[in-house]
Amino acid sequence: MSTSVSTRAKLVGVGVGPGDPELLTLKALRALREADVIAHFAKAGNSSNARAIVASHLAPGVSELKLLYPVTTEVPNSAPAYCNKMRDFYDEAAAHVASHLDAGRSVAVICEGDPLFYGSYMHLHVRLAPRYPTEVIAGVTAMSGCWSAVGTPIAQGDDVFTVLPGTLPQSELERRLAEADCAVIMKVGRNLPKVRRALERAGRLDGAIYVERGTMANAVVKRLNDKLDDEAPYLAVVLVPGWEARP
Amino acid sequence: MSTSVSTRAKLVGVGVGPGDPELLTLKALRALREADVIAHFAKAGNSSNARAIVASHLAPGVSELKLLYPVTTEVPNSAPAYCNKMRDFYDEAAAHVASHLDAGRSVAVICEGDPLFYGSYMHLHVRLAPRYPTEVIAGVTAMSGCWSAVGTPIAQGDDVFTVLPGTLPQSELERRLAEADCAVIMKVGRNLPKVRRALERAGRLDGAIYVERGTMANAVVKRLNDKLDDEAPYLAVVLVPGWEARP
Repeated sequence: MSTSVSTRAKLVGVGVGPGDPELLTLKALRALREADVIAHFAKAGNSSNARAIVASHLAPGVSELKLLYPVTTEVPNSAPAYCNKMRDFYDEAAAHVASHLDAGRSVAVICEGDPLFYGSYMHLHVRLAPRYPTEVIAGVTAMSGCWSAVGTPIAQGDDVFTVLPGTLPQSELERRLAEADCAVIMKVGRNLPKVRRALERAGRLDGAIYVERGTMANAVVKRLNDKLDDEAPYLAVVLVPGWEARP
Repeated sequence: MSTSVSTRAKLVGVGVGPGDPELLTLKALRALREADVIAHFAKAGNSSNARAIVASHLAPGVSELKLLYPVTTEVPNSAPAYCNKMRDFYDEAAAHVASHLDAGRSVAVICEGDPLFYGSYMHLHVRLAPRYPTEVIAGVTAMSGCWSAVGTPIAQGDDVFTVLPGTLPQSELERRLAEADCAVIMKVGRNLPKVRRALERAGRLDGAIYVERGTMANAVVKRLNDKLDDEAPYLAVVLVPGWEARP
């Protein structure tokens, strides 16, 4: 029986979880072992978290494809120039991946957390999934990793749960926090003083928990009340648990 | 070197993912193998999804503890009688688990999805974590399983993401949908006609996707526009993706 090379061509978005290599799923592990090429996004000069998470699971000598973000620090995120540059980058990255697929190779794109939840993989997915066999392997999200490491029940019963980027204006953060039963605020970084003011004005500061590198050995967890406004990494999160003394 | 029996006493909340046994993490697998007792919640007469997910991973003859919910169909959810009954049940369940811990046994409580995200495990956690060594192992949530199975990017960039229970009044669903970039509506079941009306009035019906048993072999996925209001299981979800043609 002969298997045509082209039948192997498949795009796989692989969620590798929040940081702890043991939070990889069995399915992700199998995808890594079966893929012809392992691809990941990275910033120039930075090591990739996703790559570090899977490092111990990669076969020696496996073929890798590094998709390097363009340097955009000089352009504001909202500027059309930024959007154009990123669009061109994702087009190129998709073309790179497609060249492997066209040659009959399967490509696993590793993604921190869950591929379709705030992940870069989505940019490849929307470009390639209409043209190639595609599979997405769900992963443990960064936020699940955080509240599990802290041991804080986050949502229950009929709670409304909301994910808010710390980049929102203070008034909008405040309004949305006031009407969420529970929330996670992402991209805290330099937004920390604003996030704190919004929580305070929404009456939610006391229960808020500050988390840095939630599932890493060097995690920092403290009540937000005990964290100074000095500095916070971009990926720090604030948990606003919804648990009350119900049943 | 002698190890005191009591050092094994440990409560472990184990997220076993959304349904596909391959979406178990390596860490969950290890917890199942190391635990002296495997506990799960179940409804009388119903098989437990969590138990089914791990079935193939359990050692033969492992000690199991089944925590059977009381029958409450005759009492409305909001009634004090219901709350009291459930509180008593969780107190008893915690006492049961504690008896194993006090005897120096480790207990793994298996939970569909993620233990601290809308999971019953939380009720044991708040009762026992202050008194015993406790670990929570994050899992892939049911909602991640759904959007991955469908292959639909759900949230990106600075999107505000919201989880809404279908039990909310229509006007509140509508208002919250109108101001979320993306959302998941849970507990659809008999709320389906109301959920549909809220989506329509919020201008979000066209992109909405209806999903039943997202990560099971017999999953049902369709545009909500193509799903009749006839009937929907309690655990069906509606995805409202936020993706637009950005970079």
